[in-house]
Amino acid sequence: MNVTVSRRAHFNAAHRLHRPDWSTEKNVAVFGKCNNPNFHGHNYEMVVSVTGKIDPETGYVVDVKILKDFIKSEVEEAFDHKNLNLDVPEFKNLNPTAENIVVVIYNKLKAVLEPHLALEVTLYETPRNFVSYSGS
Amino acid sequence: MNVTVSRRAHFNAAHRLHRPDWSTEKNVAVFGKCNNPNFHGHNYEMVVSVTGKIDPETGYVVDVKILKDFIKSEVEEAFDHKNLNLDVPEFKNLNPTAENIVVVIYNKLKAVLEPHLALEVTLYETPRNFVSYSGS
Amino acid sequence: MNVTVSRRAHFNAAHRLHRPDWSTEKNVAVFGKCNNPNFHGHNYEMVVSVTGKIDPETGYVVDVKILKDFIKSEVEEAFDHKNLNLDVPEFKNLNPTAENIVVVIYNKLKAVLEPHLALEVTLYETPRNFVSYSGS
Amino acid sequence: MNVTVSRRAHFNAAHRLHRPDWSTEKNVAVFGKCNNPNFHGHNYEMVVSVTGKIDPETGYVVDVKILKDFIKSEVEEAFDHKNLNLDVPEFKNLNPTAENIVVVIYNKLKAVLEPHLALEVTLYETPRNFVSYSGS
Amino acid sequence: MNVTVSRRAHFNAAHRLHRPDWSTEKNVAVFGKCNNPNFHGHNYEMVVSVTGKIDPETGYVVDVKILKDFIKSEVEEAFDHKNLNLDVPEFKNLNPTAENIVVVIYNKLKAVLEPHLALEVTLYETPRNFVSYSGS
Amino acid sequence: MNVTVSRRAHFNAAHRLHRPDWSTEKNVAVFGKCNNPNFHGHNYEMVVSVTGKIDPETGYVVDVKILKDFIKSEVEEAFDHKNLNLDVPEFKNLNPTAENIVVVIYNKLKAVLEPHLALEVTLYETPRNFVSYSGS
Repeated sequence: MNVTVSRRAHFNAAHRLHRPDWSTEKNVAVFGKCNNPNFHGHNYEMVVSVTGKIDPETGYVVDVKILKDFIKSEVEEAFDHKNLNLDVPEFKNLNPTAENIVVVIYNKLKAVLEPHLALEVTLYETPRNFVSYSGS
Repeated sequence: MNVTVSRRAHFNAAHRLHRPDWSTEKNVAVFGKCNNPNFHGHNYEMVVSVTGKIDPETGYVVDVKILKDFIKSEVEEAFDHKNLNLDVPEFKNLNPTAENIVVVIYNKLKAVLEPHLALEVTLYETPRNFVSYSGS
Repeated sequence: MNVTVSRRAHFNAAHRLHRPDWSTEKNVAVFGKCNNPNFHGHNYEMVVSVTGKIDPETGYVVDVKILKDFIKSEVEEAFDHKNLNLDVPEFKNLNPTAENIVVVIYNKLKAVLEPHLALEVTLYETPRNFVSYSGS
Repeated sequence: MNVTVSRRAHFNAAHRLHRPDWSTEKNVAVFGKCNNPNFHGHNYEMVVSVTGKIDPETGYVVDVKILKDFIKSEVEEAFDHKNLNLDVPEFKNLNPTAENIVVVIYNKLKAVLEPHLALEVTLYETPRNFVSYSGS
Repeated sequence: MNVTVSRRAHFNAAHRLHRPDWSTEKNVAVFGKCNNPNFHGHNYEMVVSVTGKIDPETGYVVDVKILKDFIKSEVEEAFDHKNLNLDVPEFKNLNPTAENIVVVIYNKLKAVLEPHLALEVTLYETPRNFVSYSGS
Repeated sequence: MNVTVSRRAHFNAAHRLHRPDWSTEKNVAVFGKCNNPNFHGHNYEMVVSVTGKIDPETGYVVDVKILKDFIKSEVEEAFDHKNLNLDVPEFKNLNPTAENIVVVIYNKLKAVLEPHLALEVTLYETPRNFVSYSGS
């Protein structure tokens, strides 16, 4: 009897899509205005979804307060009001596309959650563009 | 050719997370401010999703009016403007966590829907905390 | 040059519409299912709007962190996960209709904000029902 | 390592649920007010979700600009500000229920996307009624 | 001590922007794709806001159940699942622009509300385009 | 008979709150994490509201297509995917607080709209923090 528990969270960050090993022309051709050398930014919204069995003692799959604390320590404190390219080590050599960001968030949260819990992360770069990753 | 048809609905209710077989201290330690003996409350939002084949006669998987009526009779009339702990029989001996509520709603709706239809229920306790259950 | 700065916040609470000086019949006739003696509840959403001149030093009308702290101390800590009728002194003798709640919130915030700032509070009892008060 | 990339889009259209081979009585009995001979309409919202591997060169599963252009050419230009029954060839002989519309949209987009990408389309007829189809 | 009470409601309708006394060319030039002779449609959302003093007896400015019933009888039953141009008498000789619709709704509701209550109506033609009217 | 017509729009940008004439310590004390020297960013949402009389010819206060084009040329093309501090001339010597941004947007749009139309701009820095300005 698996139930999925989801928690919505958010962080605001600047980023730039760019590959230093490409020419300026190729960067602009592929990444368009997302390649602006002075950065642009987003209010990133996340939905973190954890699936597992209900603990008959507590009636919880996971205590949402604990999930909220993990999101705070692993994601919000690391990413909020930051420049993803310059301030966040995971993106020093990884282009911060929404796809790459969601995989980084998934890996950070998977490492701290109890291993029997399945995880999916959805990341909204804007209300109209979003990505999901569940580890496979 | 399976299509999923979803209907959003809502009810407002009071509840309290509490186990009478635990001490007050343990209840507060586990359930925090959700253990308030005078109850607190939520605008619960639900998404009820039914999956099946399109009936070539009607172009419907399920008539949304019928689905809406089932949600009304099974969930809204039973839960809306109620105290889940005191007024709803299913929670007399079951802690009304979001996880337990979504399983109760799933079971009530599954019992009245045509058996060939698959069902998933998502329950939003707040816009930021929600749970899903699809029966397994 | 007046600019309005708004901050959204929320609290979850139980309440009951009831006048102890009325008969049960009259209470039910006027307040309907909102009169449930065991209470029901809501996720109350608030928009707190403060109007004043932009401080040329900071570019702020009001520091949103300060506004957020006032909302936390005056409203969230007082109302969140509470039973408005039983736990909140302002409603011991005041029926917690949305109208009365919004006036109470307005008065609590007006008392701590700098006097030259105009204030409006909007309170959503549900996403479809809401009230606003600006002090006159 | 599959990631899902989703794009939200919308179109406004008129439609009518009707089977010309049925009597007026049967049409009204089955389709109710959706059978109004003068049509009614909706702001249809769509979420188009594409699943595949991240291209290590670009960090993209799919370039959202390309996805956006496909949605524009295949769906928005074909359906927006149209009468689905009268102006859109796919519904000349197909009742434009939400279920049938989502399958038509899926098929149009599947035909132009790279074949290795999995596709799911969710179509909101109203904020409270929506359908999803992923091709099987 | 004036408080504003607002109620959100909605209706789905087809319409066409058109002046029969203009040429086809002028209609297309002015109204663009909204002039489609086969109509298009919207999920119209409304916010009906009523301002007055709190009744000290009930704690209400207006009973929301009564407001909801007025919206139902005056607007939803008249407009929902209708073709505004063909089915709604008010638009037989009035172009159903959002501006004209909101004035019609205001006038219908003003006529049935108690005269001491101030009224404002906001009408969302889409989530991104909306109009408001308060009678002057 | 004045009606207000509103249009929602958005842009994504990076910014930093900073006064070069202040010490680092004072900048951090006043602007907190918004002072990050590497910038952070937002999905800014705007509501542009124009008030005037309904033109009896067209049924419009303002043609929303024209309003949309003004928003595009004056705001979106100037601000979207930009660094407000580095790329936008208006903020070369003006701290890009939400308050200052909304006044800049108001002034740019007021200059191109017909002078008899009243204007209000609301700018959402996040879904929970927003500001409004109407010119006085």
